[in-house]
Amino acid sequence: MITIDNNDTICAISTPAGVGGIAVARVSGPLAITITDRIWKGKPLTEAASHTAHLGSVTDPDNGETIDQGVATVFRAPGTFTGEDVVELSVHGSKFIQRELIALLLRQGCRLAEPGEFTRRAYTSGRMDLTEAEAVADLIAASSRAAHRIALSQMKGNFTRRLETLREQLLELASLLELELDFSEEDVEFASRTRLKELAIAVSDEICRLERSFATGQAIKEGIPVAIVGETNVGKSSLLNILVGDDRAIVSDVHGTTRDLIEDTAEIGDLLFRFIDTAGLRETADTVEAMGIERSHAAAGRARVVMLVSDAARPLQTALIDETLASMRDDASLILVINKTDLINHDTLSQTIADATQRCPTAKEIIAISARNGDGIDTLKAAIQNAAGADRIGDDQLLVTNARHSQALARAARSIARVINGLDTSLPGDLIAQDLRETLHHLADITPAITTPDLLASIFSRFCIGK
Amino acid sequence: MITIDNNDTICAISTPAGVGGIAVARVSGPLAITITDRIWKGKPLTEAASHTAHLGSVTDPDNGETIDQGVATVFRAPGTFTGEDVVELSVHGSKFIQRELIALLLRQGCRLAEPGEFTRRAYTSGRMDLTEAEAVADLIAASSRAAHRIALSQMKGNFTRRLETLREQLLELASLLELELDFSEEDVEFASRTRLKELAIAVSDEICRLERSFATGQAIKEGIPVAIVGETNVGKSSLLNILVGDDRAIVSDVHGTTRDLIEDTAEIGDLLFRFIDTAGLRETADTVEAMGIERSHAAAGRARVVMLVSDAARPLQTALIDETLASMRDDASLILVINKTDLINHDTLSQTIADATQRCPTAKEIIAISARNGDGIDTLKAAIQNAAGADRIGDDQLLVTNARHSQALARAARSIARVINGLDTSLPGDLIAQDLRETLHHLADITPAITTPDLLASIFSRFCIGK
Repeated sequence: MITIDNNDTICAISTPAGVGGIAVARVSGPLAITITDRIWKGKPLTEAASHTAHLGSVTDPDNGETIDQGVATVFRAPGTFTGEDVVELSVHGSKFIQRELIALLLRQGCRLAEPGEFTRRAYTSGRMDLTEAEAVADLIAASSRAAHRIALSQMKGNFTRRLETLREQLLELASLLELELDFSEEDVEFASRTRLKELAIAVSDEICRLERSFATGQAIKEGIPVAIVGETNVGKSSLLNILVGDDRAIVSDVHGTTRDLIEDTAEIGDLLFRFIDTAGLRETADTVEAMGIERSHAAAGRARVVMLVSDAARPLQTALIDETLASMRDDASLILVINKTDLINHDTLSQTIADATQRCPTAKEIIAISARNGDGIDTLKAAIQNAAGADRIGDDQLLVTNARHSQALARAARSIARVINGLDTSLPGDLIAQDLRETLHHLADITPAITTPDLLASIFSRFCIGK
Repeated sequence: MITIDNNDTICAISTPAGVGGIAVARVSGPLAITITDRIWKGKPLTEAASHTAHLGSVTDPDNGETIDQGVATVFRAPGTFTGEDVVELSVHGSKFIQRELIALLLRQGCRLAEPGEFTRRAYTSGRMDLTEAEAVADLIAASSRAAHRIALSQMKGNFTRRLETLREQLLELASLLELELDFSEEDVEFASRTRLKELAIAVSDEICRLERSFATGQAIKEGIPVAIVGETNVGKSSLLNILVGDDRAIVSDVHGTTRDLIEDTAEIGDLLFRFIDTAGLRETADTVEAMGIERSHAAAGRARVVMLVSDAARPLQTALIDETLASMRDDASLILVINKTDLINHDTLSQTIADATQRCPTAKEIIAISARNGDGIDTLKAAIQNAAGADRIGDDQLLVTNARHSQALARAARSIARVINGLDTSLPGDLIAQDLRETLHHLADITPAITTPDLLASIFSRFCIGK
């Protein structure tokens, strides 16, 4: 466990690692302005007003050597990101300057920030709550519009407000239950129990919906898994390349080229997809390849969308369809992709499609493409989005993307289920009240008022340094 | 040729590519503040004072969708880096946000900046001269203290001032020559010609010194080449690994493992060194390896420092020493490195060192090391710095690091040599004046008052986008 002192002044390069036009070092803490001023040649930063930018030089006070010319922006507490005094130093983005600047700040009394420590301070100073702080890391990692929207919505406190509503409903439940206890002698029980149960079911539904949304939330965050399966040499790797737009998979005409799973991500519409190219499915004596085929079945089992690719000139094997369908999850969608349409005529293609429709009635869609000349690829992309339920992911829908939140919601769901069960079985009010308190407790865990240092360390260690 | 319009408003991400805590987009041009204000929710930026930072949201005005929360810093012309109105937008450093922010700025009327275009505008608006602008790219690329110092010194105008001094001396020469022409009837020629020649030689010496400094300047910028040569299996690759601090070269006990040249850079003291591990030198029937050995000789021929590595338990071959010395440049230094000292006793080592001293009296140093346990490595590092002349690279010494400058100086050197020759051979003053004008012209090429678009395009294309 790292012990973190919240009273010292921390610094870090906050811009991405590497060389660029400019790099920004962030300094935060009670001595942020004093320490930065010591290495600053220009207008004294100690006299600078909040939210003002100043041209000057970063200079080593020990030897007078100039490190760089740059801009220092002063932000005075409490109206800053961390709630503390903050200085942002914008310098030329060479590796040398970035390294020297941090070394200089450390020599003058700063401490190097732990990963996520700036955001952690924003949380501890009350500038944001825990779910909002957690959303900052997701926002930075977001690589699709949908993932970005979810993180931004959480950062703006939408999830917190939803939890607050649930909490209010649970408190209403509790007060109704108390009323029942007070008037228990007077036989008012039945009327209020109906109302109690209505409320408990509404709360339970919402908690369960949020908890279930984690699967979708996580898929959106990490990329929705799409497995590409099919016989050898039907063009699975070519299809992967055209979908992700580069030469990630090795394409060759030899049967069974792809022995390992090859994964790559691509954004289609607002969603990120994680395409998994699998070994060609065929009988084989080659042990290595046989292992590849096994993994390919496993990949189909994890995917939310399975694309079964076939060659337009060869009939689709019923055994292969059955095998694929058997390994798929219940909630996954199957798309039949008929490739190499450039090599056959229109009549043959119509026959192939009619044949496929008959053999595999459960397929969500049947799409004819040519990975070679790009025909049908846009239609296929639309089908993939559709199969992933892109249309069902609305702007206003709140999705849980954090495993910690999902676990707390699952615990809350079990407690509220016991409340409903208690109401059904006419359990005494004080026993029901106990389960109600537990539900409240589990929800409060998501945005706790007081947190242990261990929990904070585990949450903020996911962050990059400088944030 | 790209035609660049200096009147439009440009934008780019100025921080290094990739994901980080924050990223900064720079907007510069007459509409910088107006355009940014259109995508900004918060205090109107059009009313913001210069050098002030404002909290707000980047929002798409077409659909009201928020891209991110961030800070906008307004810099008003002319006191800005480019001399134009500038806004810096600091946002969360996700790839998605960076991409969306730039897309949004482009939709609102910005143009994506060409590489180096911000610095180019600083030059065209008169905020810096050409050598100062060129130094910005070097400063960003600098990866050692020495390279950083040279670039910073040039960016602060030290090279420009030195050129200005040379120009003044040349103008004095010209006026003396004019005086001579005016009084040519009166036989004052001899006195002034002595003075003329003194001045011309002083100018010539300085121009030649600057031009010669390019070799050192470039070596400092790109890393001083150090060749590691020696017989097979003496531990050259292990030595490279220990010097650069990772497992770059494959180390094995099989003779002749390293067939290709392996290069890696490491900073020792203030200098960057480029270490070149070469194939082991031995008689071989293997063509591939023989090619490696040939390349190894060529590498020794380019290096400024050659380390000849031998095994402490085996006597150093005189033929190998002769071969290495024969392939070295005249100004390069040889260091004999006796490796594997951990495997022999002290007496044997003393004998080996005495033997090596006798066999190779021209070696600058003989260092006993153990690449396995690190013995002697610090001494070797000091010897490498010493051999590269690190002590001779003073703070106040001006080094040319730019090929364009070096070429102009070489042309100026030839012209001033003709001036001296003309004075020696008592050439008529008007012919000497012609060569003097040429010298001035070549020096002026380095920091021209007027430049062609082609030259500017070629100079600034070396920059990264966003600078």
